[in-house]
Amino acid sequence: MHTEPTTFSAESYFATQPSPQHLQQDVDKVRDFVTKQAKEGRSVVLVTSGGTTVPLELNVVRFLDNFSAGTRGATSAEYFLKAGYAVIFMHRQFSLQPFSRHYSHSTNPFLDFLDIDPPEAAGAIPRISVTPSKRADLLEVLTAYKEVHARGTLHTLTFVTVNDYLWLLRAVSKEMAVLKRRAMFYLAAAVSDFFLPTQKMSEHKIQSGKGNLSIEMDQVPKILKPLVDEWTPGGYIVSFKLETDQDLLLPKARQAIERYGHQVVIGNDLHRRKFEVVFVSKKLVPTLPPGIEQTKEATQQAANSFSEYWLRINLPEHPLPDAPVKEIEEDIVQELVRRHTEWIENTP
Amino acid sequence: MHTEPTTFSAESYFATQPSPQHLQQDVDKVRDFVTKQAKEGRSVVLVTSGGTTVPLELNVVRFLDNFSAGTRGATSAEYFLKAGYAVIFMHRQFSLQPFSRHYSHSTNPFLDFLDIDPPEAAGAIPRISVTPSKRADLLEVLTAYKEVHARGTLHTLTFVTVNDYLWLLRAVSKEMAVLKRRAMFYLAAAVSDFFLPTQKMSEHKIQSGKGNLSIEMDQVPKILKPLVDEWTPGGYIVSFKLETDQDLLLPKARQAIERYGHQVVIGNDLHRRKFEVVFVSKKLVPTLPPGIEQTKEATQQAANSFSEYWLRINLPEHPLPDAPVKEIEEDIVQELVRRHTEWIENTP
Repeated sequence: MHTEPTTFSAESYFATQPSPQHLQQDVDKVRDFVTKQAKEGRSVVLVTSGGTTVPLELNVVRFLDNFSAGTRGATSAEYFLKAGYAVIFMHRQFSLQPFSRHYSHSTNPFLDFLDIDPPEAAGAIPRISVTPSKRADLLEVLTAYKEVHARGTLHTLTFVTVNDYLWLLRAVSKEMAVLKRRAMFYLAAAVSDFFLPTQKMSEHKIQSGKGNLSIEMDQVPKILKPLVDEWTPGGYIVSFKLETDQDLLLPKARQAIERYGHQVVIGNDLHRRKFEVVFVSKKLVPTLPPGIEQTKEATQQAANSFSEYWLRINLPEHPLPDAPVKEIEEDIVQELVRRHTEWIENTP
Repeated sequence: MHTEPTTFSAESYFATQPSPQHLQQDVDKVRDFVTKQAKEGRSVVLVTSGGTTVPLELNVVRFLDNFSAGTRGATSAEYFLKAGYAVIFMHRQFSLQPFSRHYSHSTNPFLDFLDIDPPEAAGAIPRISVTPSKRADLLEVLTAYKEVHARGTLHTLTFVTVNDYLWLLRAVSKEMAVLKRRAMFYLAAAVSDFFLPTQKMSEHKIQSGKGNLSIEMDQVPKILKPLVDEWTPGGYIVSFKLETDQDLLLPKARQAIERYGHQVVIGNDLHRRKFEVVFVSKKLVPTLPPGIEQTKEATQQAANSFSEYWLRINLPEHPLPDAPVKEIEEDIVQELVRRHTEWIENTP
């Protein structure tokens, strides 16, 4: 079956694609969280994290996915919490989460560091405790985790498909609009550029043995534009560009800033993203009065009107096992908090 | 770019697609494990688990995936270990694993049940221990986990792509051939039917904004046939069929048995798989001497020559929170162990 590709605006997308089942419950909880944080005078950052899926069948067996373990988002969320922000952590189901990320079931399984103590009395259930060599590390993570839960500054919600993500992002950003300039958006999720409209999906599992698989997908609408202009005017918006071709990094980042008019694009190369990123923003240039044409120099100036800030950390070439490794997210968050604070203060 | 679909036999697949980087190290470890188990007289089951990916780019950003958390495989592995089998657990990176599966970071995060005890002396690092209400459950899992590790009866290896999976399966099954009838294969992984040959992959991230995405994939070669005939003759092979259309379940399962000549297909419907599966096998019918043509009756008999064994468990409609839930994998493994044992004993 060959169908014509459809071009979706954000508006036509939401008018034709079904909303996720628990959207209203999710939104109600976000509203309570935002109200509490606003009352307590905290800035709130929405951190999106992990990849989105594009189901190919209505009864989902197969889907297209984007590579992302959720490291960037989960790590950054921890540093935002440390910096005093409240965090709405909107992440792909089963992707990494702040705090527990240190104990992946594969690389640092927690069952390995639990000891069964000798029972204190005959017949008593023995105590289980953390093995002494792991105590210090875990204590740090656990203390931070318990503090965040006691303060109530972390709210978690999950998505799976790109459709879940788009509906949630719109709803959550509208809830955050009341925070005005105190709202930050840190859009680190790896969102699919393509999707398959429900109307084109096959109901059952696509059968093999009938030749080869051929999929045609439509483009996901660009939602940064309505996010900036309509859903949450006033928010400080940071988006990410991941490329595998270094040469495309800056042009793509500049294009995004130009097109959507938000505050920062953080560009990163797939293979260098753990130790190098670039912040791309628009420099503030005076607008020409209407009727006056731009001179050649002004055009040149406009082309140079992006600021680029490279952030690099040195990773040890041969790290010692168990030696703490500097995380670039610490510096990314520090720089963003600085910029966000300045931006709040400079608002008339 | 439109290229003609290629049909791959298992042979042409392995001749043209690159082997994964750590294949040899992985195989060496499997060989040691198999040697140890053979010496100690244990039966060994290879459990494959989780979905495989199909990368769309050489620098992987996007991939096709198959729905699977790895619950079936991880749960079954635990019951095989309980039944005295040694288990090679070959699973998708980050999918569920035996034992730790009970403590998913999302549904039962382990940080929630750790208490920081008051320090025993000033300046000492405080002990961290499991909160009393969680002790009994965790003790059971932890005890089983520690026993398995002490005995050395669980070996874990991981795959991500369908290419990793195919190369590993071939290599591991060849290593298991020395076990003869004591080797079981429990192929619960959700393996893609389609793939994109390296030769057709784009090097960099597919750019959006150039119209819609169109992907054409080739069929993954059917590897059950060479597994049965060449790689591990003598092994007891169990494969799975997952369908979303109930009506296709039995025909598809019978077709697989007919085509590949292995021992059991376990058919399951996507929405009923937690409480209902069907074992499909070939009944042993006497072969006609050469030169004698089949009568109509014999043809009819051949059509009826499959045995079907439905396995169902009753799930409580309103389960009590924290009440232990019966897992269908317990019964699946019990039935397979029974069949496997009988099959070993009846071998001339």
